[in-house]
Amino acid sequence: MNEHLIVLSEAEYALRLGRLQQAMEPAADALLLCDNANLYWLTGRVFAGYAYIPREGSPLFGLRRCVHLTAPGAAPERKIEDFAARVAAECPAASRIGYETDVQSYAAVERARAAFVAQWPAAEAVSAAPVMRAVRSVKTPVQQQMMRESGRRHEAVYRRVPQLYTPGMSDIELQVEIERLSRLEGCLGQFRVAGGDMELFMGNVLAGDNADAPSPYDFAMGGAGMDPSLPVGANGTVIHPGTTVMVDMNGDYTGYMTDMTRTFRLGEISAEAMRAHELSREICRTLADAARPGTPARELYDTALRMATDAGLAHLFMGHRQHAGFVGHGLGIEINEAPVIAPRSRDILAEGMCIALEPKFVIPGTGAVGIENTYIVRADGPMECITGAPEEIIDLDK
Amino acid sequence: MNEHLIVLSEAEYALRLGRLQQAMEPAADALLLCDNANLYWLTGRVFAGYAYIPREGSPLFGLRRCVHLTAPGAAPERKIEDFAARVAAECPAASRIGYETDVQSYAAVERARAAFVAQWPAAEAVSAAPVMRAVRSVKTPVQQQMMRESGRRHEAVYRRVPQLYTPGMSDIELQVEIERLSRLEGCLGQFRVAGGDMELFMGNVLAGDNADAPSPYDFAMGGAGMDPSLPVGANGTVIHPGTTVMVDMNGDYTGYMTDMTRTFRLGEISAEAMRAHELSREICRTLADAARPGTPARELYDTALRMATDAGLAHLFMGHRQHAGFVGHGLGIEINEAPVIAPRSRDILAEGMCIALEPKFVIPGTGAVGIENTYIVRADGPMECITGAPEEIIDLDK
Repeated sequence: MNEHLIVLSEAEYALRLGRLQQAMEPAADALLLCDNANLYWLTGRVFAGYAYIPREGSPLFGLRRCVHLTAPGAAPERKIEDFAARVAAECPAASRIGYETDVQSYAAVERARAAFVAQWPAAEAVSAAPVMRAVRSVKTPVQQQMMRESGRRHEAVYRRVPQLYTPGMSDIELQVEIERLSRLEGCLGQFRVAGGDMELFMGNVLAGDNADAPSPYDFAMGGAGMDPSLPVGANGTVIHPGTTVMVDMNGDYTGYMTDMTRTFRLGEISAEAMRAHELSREICRTLADAARPGTPARELYDTALRMATDAGLAHLFMGHRQHAGFVGHGLGIEINEAPVIAPRSRDILAEGMCIALEPKFVIPGTGAVGIENTYIVRADGPMECITGAPEEIIDLDK
Repeated sequence: MNEHLIVLSEAEYALRLGRLQQAMEPAADALLLCDNANLYWLTGRVFAGYAYIPREGSPLFGLRRCVHLTAPGAAPERKIEDFAARVAAECPAASRIGYETDVQSYAAVERARAAFVAQWPAAEAVSAAPVMRAVRSVKTPVQQQMMRESGRRHEAVYRRVPQLYTPGMSDIELQVEIERLSRLEGCLGQFRVAGGDMELFMGNVLAGDNADAPSPYDFAMGGAGMDPSLPVGANGTVIHPGTTVMVDMNGDYTGYMTDMTRTFRLGEISAEAMRAHELSREICRTLADAARPGTPARELYDTALRMATDAGLAHLFMGHRQHAGFVGHGLGIEINEAPVIAPRSRDILAEGMCIALEPKFVIPGTGAVGIENTYIVRADGPMECITGAPEEIIDLDK
């Protein structure tokens, strides 16, 4: 890695900065970014510090660590107060400054706000969250390529899952072998989630009825987990004939992550489970065909639910004992970006959005079935699927 | 896992709750906890929801998900507003409510504060952070046992590191094999850090001069990492003769994590590196011997720095191109709990605190050397070391 703070090409940086400054109008006339994911989005590198982005002109950067990094407008500043003083010396006064109220702590936002008010007493505080959420939801061509590359490697790992299975394995034993293979394939491991509520280590492997164990996290599927400190995912269930294993593992190979789920089985499973799995594939195809720039996200959810209802499977759709209230989500740097594909979502699809669709079913006595793919919204025509592993239920023992 | 919200024994729950209510005096007369780590500390289980803890009497719990969980005072409440209404109906009005201003987002704290002010217009908002930081820093005997169990399994993994090495391996390849072994030994993987700034996946393996690459995170050691989205740790360096490999991997086996570092080498390394490594061991012994309830944390730091200075190694102590400003830290549920062993720390040691000491050195041309152990502060006598793997530099190829 070089010693430039801005890792992106000049053109890419200009593109992102331009989109950001345009999106700020009329909500804010400057943003203060400190969050790792937002700084990575802007510069192509995670660093410790601050970025002040005026609606016009060049950003300023304050470096809390890694003070050897260089960029126009960058200087070492451990304290936000020092950074705010330099901003005030070099920039015209901002009347509305957007802070990351959704991902920075109360204490951090209050301190930053006070630092800027000390410079500019009239500066009003607004939230940067809607601006960042909107601008990050639409991926540039460079970001789309990083998503595709993650999908390509993610797929290579999934194709080899059956080779990792040995008879008598538990869900967690299989998961550990998938983790190892993923890491050797270049998976960075880091599973970024906006906000501190959702925790998951490397992904979710659900065997049999453990798929029906409710979890405290807002993921599509649950699982009891190995320990009450992390009650999600594999719980040590030995994989039994007549049950499924749902594999939903980390796809962060480039800093931009894909989300992909495939279902495996041991021996024959019930006709209902097979039917629900095929319905999941059909829902994905239908939604991918229907999604265009301008499509309301909630319409996709409604279509998915209607298809599940028409098939008599609504009670098993997105869970059984506990249901998830969505069928898909935006993703990229973090797993929970905009848009959200949910009944009350106000998000509207736009070209370049990256969306994971995961219409899943939980069949009591069998386990979870269904697939998940990551897609890119195209200007015209169906969404592009970037997670291409085979979609049918795959036998672990053949 | 059972369906009780409170997983702890009655006695343990009463002990923690009693300590918490005592610590609230005089700062707050009620706390609102929503953070996963704080809820886990209180109940022994991570759940999605709210806990309201009055200074006297029993807590109330609101469940956002997993509404099947049962406890006295628990009810399903998706919205904080509904929970606040029940609290107001069942509890006397609180005049100062402590919110998690250090770990909850600005938006979440503001929403919770408004919800309680709607019930009790006179309720003042204060920070729960100092109370939670203090009470979590002292581990109960049950928590100490969980720390010891993590240390025992952590140690079992470290003893087998040389068996994982094969000639020609890179740092990341060795790390992946340690990750796999750790996970098979029961490591939960989750690396909990308070606040959103510090990110690390499963730990840090630093080979040769990569140990000298500055990182944006506030860890003792850096490393360039594999990608600018996660610039820390292994960077793909092939392990060369004459260099060291520092292994500092995740010790979360029970929900309570130990921190342990050991140094490995390939072939002979410089006399200076060997001397610095022995000094690290000596600093650990000296600090462990000196630490008693009542010892100021900064005195331990001063002692460590003086020993490094006396040995002519201060310029390599806790880094070379970039220095970390501490030599140890409290830990348990999260890696960065109180106390912090740093020059300006105001923390005072108390019986039952768990502390990692990591006096490390970076030797240019060789790599990082030194050790890290986790200790428990005892009532009298030296701290108890709970990470007992051999401390000498270990040959990878013998």
